[in-house]
Amino acid sequence: MAKDIRHRPRVGVIGGSRAKKEALQDAYQIGRLVAGQGGVLVCGGLGGVMEAASRGAKEAGGLTLGILPGNAAAEANPSIDIPVATGLGYTRNSLVALNADVLIAVDGEYGTLSEIAFGLIYGRRVIGLGTWDIPGIIPAQTPEEAVDLAFRQD
Amino acid sequence: MAKDIRHRPRVGVIGGSRAKKEALQDAYQIGRLVAGQGGVLVCGGLGGVMEAASRGAKEAGGLTLGILPGNAAAEANPSIDIPVATGLGYTRNSLVALNADVLIAVDGEYGTLSEIAFGLIYGRRVIGLGTWDIPGIIPAQTPEEAVDLAFRQD
Amino acid sequence: MAKDIRHRPRVGVIGGSRAKKEALQDAYQIGRLVAGQGGVLVCGGLGGVMEAASRGAKEAGGLTLGILPGNAAAEANPSIDIPVATGLGYTRNSLVALNADVLIAVDGEYGTLSEIAFGLIYGRRVIGLGTWDIPGIIPAQTPEEAVDLAFRQD
Amino acid sequence: MAKDIRHRPRVGVIGGSRAKKEALQDAYQIGRLVAGQGGVLVCGGLGGVMEAASRGAKEAGGLTLGILPGNAAAEANPSIDIPVATGLGYTRNSLVALNADVLIAVDGEYGTLSEIAFGLIYGRRVIGLGTWDIPGIIPAQTPEEAVDLAFRQD
Repeated sequence: MAKDIRHRPRVGVIGGSRAKKEALQDAYQIGRLVAGQGGVLVCGGLGGVMEAASRGAKEAGGLTLGILPGNAAAEANPSIDIPVATGLGYTRNSLVALNADVLIAVDGEYGTLSEIAFGLIYGRRVIGLGTWDIPGIIPAQTPEEAVDLAFRQD
Repeated sequence: MAKDIRHRPRVGVIGGSRAKKEALQDAYQIGRLVAGQGGVLVCGGLGGVMEAASRGAKEAGGLTLGILPGNAAAEANPSIDIPVATGLGYTRNSLVALNADVLIAVDGEYGTLSEIAFGLIYGRRVIGLGTWDIPGIIPAQTPEEAVDLAFRQD
Repeated sequence: MAKDIRHRPRVGVIGGSRAKKEALQDAYQIGRLVAGQGGVLVCGGLGGVMEAASRGAKEAGGLTLGILPGNAAAEANPSIDIPVATGLGYTRNSLVALNADVLIAVDGEYGTLSEIAFGLIYGRRVIGLGTWDIPGIIPAQTPEEAVDLAFRQD
Repeated sequence: MAKDIRHRPRVGVIGGSRAKKEALQDAYQIGRLVAGQGGVLVCGGLGGVMEAASRGAKEAGGLTLGILPGNAAAEANPSIDIPVATGLGYTRNSLVALNADVLIAVDGEYGTLSEIAFGLIYGRRVIGLGTWDIPGIIPAQTPEEAVDLAFRQD
């Protein structure tokens, strides 16, 4: 398996470390679908939307990469396979966006907004599900549609 | 003068490296007013809104701090007194927000949006003049109003 | 396999992007041995010692993580499974050290010296093979000894 | 005065946040001499050697720039005129080196070693006074000699 990790599409899921039940369910479902399509799930490695998406991906047999704000890999949620500690604090949000080929934003507050902005700065496609209304975001109505849009070739 | 630099309020002016004439004029005027009120002008150190605000501040006898994306202090615009090279690329946007007590956003694109987001993450007051419409931003209609809001104690 | 990636020991191999033939052979051999012992190979993701160690690890069926200075995952050498782009330039050296449980320095110039220093700052064991003579480094005479020292529990 | 801040030489003084009395006295004296020659004193902004050098520079009428590891400008020592918060932790050591035209290392432990390494990576002249013995460092025997070497044009 390791052989082809490098060339799998990387899908970043961004959203708050606290979120309502529905957003968490959406993130979990997105994680499952990303893994089902062979994508690597990239996120900020902590709780809330990040944890739900990672758990979904792991339960569907996927691989998960968590770009953490702190110095300790151990702070990653239990569904992160590859924690990357940065020690950069919130500044690490830039690296989350940079390490995804495409981003799906779910709900989210100012941290998510910064990741959306970096995604757009870095020229990534950013898909939104119940998140900030920013020109440049491609809106989706369901987890299925969000993941379809993420994997669409164009 | 150096004696009291430390305790002067720092006002960050954020906006695009390219902007329309009116935004540049606003930024210039904001720079003048910030300096007139004894503030240190903080910005990203490059062109466009950053350059106009810095020039306004310098012409009014102020002090300017530019937090640069690249490795070379020389890339700062000519009105920057204290260039700080970061070598962090766009990731430096976080540090621009962090080093201002209050931020004024003028026009701007995704880079500015990331700085607004970091400002709000770091709990800074963010004042907006013809910029992104983000909940949490305090809107102003003129440079004068923007600077008044920036220096208002509350 | 992915299941247990999280808990495999991470061994960082640090050294120059250019190195003499002997150092490259040592790095390659270290990569093989790290993979053989079930470790994840962490490095800066580029050429020279980094490339040789990654190649050795891949040829022995291991997993490799490359923490890159630039913005592009594509700049990673072909033996990197998981490239992490940082966009931080040389400043990323800190993150290479942070993401290894233990470091093996092979040859190397000032970049390697900075990674040794960060390894020691972060409290990592740093093993040296023909590298800088810095108090705190544990010297090894061969790749085999270096890897033995890296996996030694104490 | 602000007018010419931009073009004053920047001298970085690096050393530990804890140091013996003699090293602190040397750092203080270096700070005085740097200010006396019109240089801006750059350092990591905290205690020990950084504090002593900043205090020396301030007492001689100089200007001081402190590049801090944390998020709070307030953590700068009282002799810092311009604190720059980075929130990068130890990773900020790279930025200290980057923002000095020339570096003087006084005593110091692994943090100082990382700053020496970055100074040499960035092509800065690094002068050493009772510090790490690294090829590329120019040794000095006294604060006076160190500052003379720092300001020597070649």
